Amino acid sequence: MSGNFLALAQPGVQQLSPYVPGKPVDELARELNLDPAKIVKLASNENPLGPSPKVLAAIREELTELTRYPDGNGFALKSLLAEKCRVELNQVTLGNGSNDILELVGRAYLAPGLNAVFSEHAFAVYPIVTQAVGAEARVIPARDWGHDLPAMLAAIDAQTRVVFIANPNNPTGTWFDEQALNEFLQDVPENVLVVLDEAYIEYAEGSDLPDGLDFLAAYPNLLVSRTFSKAYGLASLRVGYGLSTAVVADVLNRVRQPFNVNSLALAAACAAVKDAEYLEEGRRINESGMLQLQEGFRELGLGWIPSKGNFICVDLAQVAAPIFQGLLREGVIVRPVANYGMPNHLRITIGLPAENSRFLEALAKVLARG
Amino acid sequence: MSGNFLALAQPGVQQLSPYVPGKPVDELARELNLDPAKIVKLASNENPLGPSPKVLAAIREELTELTRYPDGNGFALKSLLAEKCRVELNQVTLGNGSNDILELVGRAYLAPGLNAVFSEHAFAVYPIVTQAVGAEARVIPARDWGHDLPAMLAAIDAQTRVVFIANPNNPTGTWFDEQALNEFLQDVPENVLVVLDEAYIEYAEGSDLPDGLDFLAAYPNLLVSRTFSKAYGLASLRVGYGLSTAVVADVLNRVRQPFNVNSLALAAACAAVKDAEYLEEGRRINESGMLQLQEGFRELGLGWIPSKGNFICVDLAQVAAPIFQGLLREGVIVRPVANYGMPNHLRITIGLPAENSRFLEALAKVLARG
Repeated sequence: MSGNFLALAQPGVQQLSPYVPGKPVDELARELNLDPAKIVKLASNENPLGPSPKVLAAIREELTELTRYPDGNGFALKSLLAEKCRVELNQVTLGNGSNDILELVGRAYLAPGLNAVFSEHAFAVYPIVTQAVGAEARVIPARDWGHDLPAMLAAIDAQTRVVFIANPNNPTGTWFDEQALNEFLQDVPENVLVVLDEAYIEYAEGSDLPDGLDFLAAYPNLLVSRTFSKAYGLASLRVGYGLSTAVVADVLNRVRQPFNVNSLALAAACAAVKDAEYLEEGRRINESGMLQLQEGFRELGLGWIPSKGNFICVDLAQVAAPIFQGLLREGVIVRPVANYGMPNHLRITIGLPAENSRFLEALAKVLARG
Repeated sequence: MSGNFLALAQPGVQQLSPYVPGKPVDELARELNLDPAKIVKLASNENPLGPSPKVLAAIREELTELTRYPDGNGFALKSLLAEKCRVELNQVTLGNGSNDILELVGRAYLAPGLNAVFSEHAFAVYPIVTQAVGAEARVIPARDWGHDLPAMLAAIDAQTRVVFIANPNNPTGTWFDEQALNEFLQDVPENVLVVLDEAYIEYAEGSDLPDGLDFLAAYPNLLVSRTFSKAYGLASLRVGYGLSTAVVADVLNRVRQPFNVNSLALAAACAAVKDAEYLEEGRRINESGMLQLQEGFRELGLGWIPSKGNFICVDLAQVAAPIFQGLLREGVIVRPVANYGMPNHLRITIGLPAENSRFLEALAKVLARG
């Protein structure tokens, strides 16, 4: 009899269910025999603008070095980020997407017998990285779909090593203000690492959301994670980063794979950091698209969860799965969130005006069929 | 007093020393004020041919999709690899370089109280992934710089979960033949996963090295790992893969980050798999370069370790560090291997004929200075 390599895997790993990504356009086209060019995907909070010309130019320039290993230290990108984020170079950790940063935290600070605290309806990667290392996931019921920070505080005990909070939160789009964050950070024990996931923060600039970077100096137990996958439009390339004390960054860098971010990704991110225009245009499109969708929901008599991200959860007041399937048949991919404990909602990424219209028309059609 | 986030890290993580990559050209240029174009880097076993035109075309075509997430299932690449390697799709695991595959194995199957067996002078990533999860690294003394497979077998005990073997081995270039592999696999307990690292196997085709794939069907505890970083010339892009039973692949895929390989890397690897010409040309250049270096060493009265890779370890019969430094001042970067327990050797990647000459001239000059 041969070895049972499922039973031999670590207990936490055996219990893992892999992350379920948004349905790819090609997959839907194959399944329903649709023209991929006519499919609208508003499922993965991707930037609808398409690639920035400056980023494309930077990638093309880097192509000559394809056979060479990336700079494992990411010197150029870390220098730019340190300057932009007002920290020292040794406070920056680069990740293969911010998923990588979240995972490095789990591997460095969690283990069986320890726990991580996070909210109901929070990003699916928090439970994955917690369970992968056999730690306890302590999920705190949400309040109005958002984080109940006082309840999360109360859940922290001597075995808690990490708290994951997201502002704004994905998939709900909910947020907390500066005062709430400040009170939370003041009360979290100093040996508990607070991971503030700001994957969508660029869409919230100028609003009543705090900037996590303003808290780094005062709280050595704070790590802010950010990404190039959303507002910077580099989802395909996998670049995220963590900002923390140099001590935490040093620990994460020990666990980090030496070449976790590839050369084209590094070059693209360097160009993206400096591309203020692209960011601004993305924000503008997002703001008007958000209003367009809300107006559409209002006309259809549907509620939604107010959001500060580049997405919005619509409340269908009925089980959403058949509506999701109906939308697929119309060539529109959105995101079911039943696995986030939200069976009556669908999460819609804000698209270009025409994409938003296509979605709203398809939704009206599917709902009318009853 | 604030929390001590070094002491709070997992014990295995606290002991980790990060991987030391080959010195980047730009770094040397900055340090010694040299013209980067005149620096020769033979330090990281990179393909000296430069990028394949077919790969470049595939990347350019994929650039339109930059804002979209990669296909997390890597369907296209896995299909091509399954066909080429005569396995089913569900036996393939994609990694962010084969480093990622090695790490997934460690995270899935190793933990405190368990151990991994590997050879002295073996790839530095084996101890790193073992220590990162707090498992014991059982390092078996080498025989003639290569794996002592019988001694490795004898070191396996009830707590052994993984054996790492490399054929050919990096950094020594040593190898074992089909009979040795067969005998080893027959005797390894069935609950111990044998990771056969074939990162350099494409350079050894047609020689007396076994093809690990021939053993997959007979040994459900075998995982073969391979990479696009060497013979395929995609070091910058980070693509590796593991071939195993579907059960092991399923376990590794649970631990794998959902988008561990980025879109441009996937597209490039798909083109590279089909690019037989590039592979052939690389082999030819490697073969003649290997002879060129050996001839040069002979003229200098130096010994070397016979190698089946795209690199060779020269024996300087003296401490190599000053020679390495002398070569840097001549604008030639090679790889010191003192951290591999080989203080008198340097590892030289086979370059283009002119690069090999530049290195040999610089070496003669540095040695003559005494």
